[in-house]
Amino acid sequence: MVIDCHGHYTTVPHEVQAFREAQITGRLSGSALEVNAAITDDQLRESVRPQLAFQAARGTDLTIFSPRASAMGHHVGDRAANAQWAQLCNDLVHRVCRLFPKQFVGVCQLPQTVGGSPGDWGGELERCVNELGFVGCNLNPDPSGGHWTAPPLTDRTWYPLYERLVELDVPAMVHVSASCNPNFHATGAHYLNADTTAFMQFLTGDLFRDFPTLRFVIPHGGGAVPYHWGRYRGLAQDMKRPPLVDLIRDNIFFDTCVYHSPGMELLLKVMPVDNIVFGSEMVGAVRSIDPETGHYFDDTKRYIEQISPLGVDARRKIFELNARKVYPRIVPLIDAAASAPGATNTSR
Amino acid sequence: MVIDCHGHYTTVPHEVQAFREAQITGRLSGSALEVNAAITDDQLRESVRPQLAFQAARGTDLTIFSPRASAMGHHVGDRAANAQWAQLCNDLVHRVCRLFPKQFVGVCQLPQTVGGSPGDWGGELERCVNELGFVGCNLNPDPSGGHWTAPPLTDRTWYPLYERLVELDVPAMVHVSASCNPNFHATGAHYLNADTTAFMQFLTGDLFRDFPTLRFVIPHGGGAVPYHWGRYRGLAQDMKRPPLVDLIRDNIFFDTCVYHSPGMELLLKVMPVDNIVFGSEMVGAVRSIDPETGHYFDDTKRYIEQISPLGVDARRKIFELNARKVYPRIVPLIDAAASAPGATNTSR
Repeated sequence: MVIDCHGHYTTVPHEVQAFREAQITGRLSGSALEVNAAITDDQLRESVRPQLAFQAARGTDLTIFSPRASAMGHHVGDRAANAQWAQLCNDLVHRVCRLFPKQFVGVCQLPQTVGGSPGDWGGELERCVNELGFVGCNLNPDPSGGHWTAPPLTDRTWYPLYERLVELDVPAMVHVSASCNPNFHATGAHYLNADTTAFMQFLTGDLFRDFPTLRFVIPHGGGAVPYHWGRYRGLAQDMKRPPLVDLIRDNIFFDTCVYHSPGMELLLKVMPVDNIVFGSEMVGAVRSIDPETGHYFDDTKRYIEQISPLGVDARRKIFELNARKVYPRIVPLIDAAASAPGATNTSR
Repeated sequence: MVIDCHGHYTTVPHEVQAFREAQITGRLSGSALEVNAAITDDQLRESVRPQLAFQAARGTDLTIFSPRASAMGHHVGDRAANAQWAQLCNDLVHRVCRLFPKQFVGVCQLPQTVGGSPGDWGGELERCVNELGFVGCNLNPDPSGGHWTAPPLTDRTWYPLYERLVELDVPAMVHVSASCNPNFHATGAHYLNADTTAFMQFLTGDLFRDFPTLRFVIPHGGGAVPYHWGRYRGLAQDMKRPPLVDLIRDNIFFDTCVYHSPGMELLLKVMPVDNIVFGSEMVGAVRSIDPETGHYFDDTKRYIEQISPLGVDARRKIFELNARKVYPRIVPLIDAAASAPGATNTSR
């Protein structure tokens, strides 16, 4: 089985973004619930056709699916607006997961705001996990959208959220949203910088002493981290921090959203295989075909399969077993989907 | 010959940092010139003993030497203070270069400030290049120290500085200083993020259409860029930008400050050899020995030499020829040092 832990619902019906724009500009004429109700199941089915086609073509079975990251826009909107927006986005992901229970499992957007309090987001997290069957959340370490005004992820102000994550036994993917700072291109700089930044925060802090079972997925192949693994090992050593393999063992996982073979080879060479979860970001940041290979840049499964020293056991960890470990709530969902009528693709 | 394009004067006599601290806290009792005059040549010789020892042990000949990056502190101090501070730091680098003309060539710190005007920095640049024989400068893309309040490097506000760089035919290394934003560890996040950020700014802008001969060195192996080269190629393609090899050809160069073999292999595999300049950051961010290899993490020459597919011509480009091209003002200095009495180590 192949579980893609990093998929965003980037192809939502246009009514959804129209709602957000109306919300932001104060021209709102209906509620999020009304927008949700007005979107038909057929529209949703049609909207995820690209994802389903890519899954089938690439041989991935299940996508851990969350609202479009760049549209979270936590730097835009107040607490009420962002709560409503998160709820709409999460509800739509949930509907897609219900329509295609073998292909999608949900991860939620949090109702973050600039200066917002992590304790306020637990309600939506709990609703998504307990009522909608979601298996994790995306956590934005910079709700200011590129101004980085929130405290580091190791700061105690984040603890109320971490307590809920631990209670619910769900991980957070560290994922920023769009950038309103002209210095940072979203997918070409801000995303990767956030990944790098979060890792270094974890390296310097003692967060996992306080939360031994808290789990983070650092997306986009860990930003700059694997490429600079020697630098990080050296910094940790110079700072008298634990060896990095001990730091990350049960708490930090990297996805495989790296869009060329040399990068993927590096990731798989330097990172412990137990800390890598398969991801593609499909349909996401890069949508075209690499003229050098004739395949989609974000068909990350191909790069992994081409790495000959990687044994069957290691592949199975990356494609399936690590995701079961990081997202334990996925296990009964997989089993239920496997035993559902017409289930065919869950034991690949 | 082996030219290390990335060395900072991190081992200055303690009087230097004491001056800066007095300047910042308003307890200044003497001028920068007085501090400079009070430091003896013997103190300077003693202070660079570590660099000289590492050069000898590792077989590097010449270090392109600039003031300590983390101490630039452009976010601290006003225009007058930072001008005086840059002058002191540059003068000390110059004195070291005079004492050891075969081992060091200078690159200057600019008197940047938060909200400062790039047109104001040309005077110090010109002084350093024309009077002190420096061959380049370090340009801080974020003088705010982690708040990223300056415009992107492709913005026209930077153009007055670029005009001077082009006139003088010297490159700029894109190098931030310390971070006053608690989110960003300086050497573990801020430095690498700045490298990644600058590259994406160059990718999205048309700076080199306006300045075809302007050259930037992106340090620390290019931040996250080589690891995500597929992502960048894909983003450029999706955005209808030129192919990346064309974008970087004459204008963007990456140093080799990558502290483990897998990272170095990746860099040398994905980047055109003509765009790589040897660098180590010695004595810099990571100062200890890698227990996995028994060698210093920042002995980057070793990693390069271990890459067997790399031919003699490629090595010579990385170690010497590309530096001559990127820093053309180095050429007469090398030749002068080579013909000086007692010259022995310039034709390695």
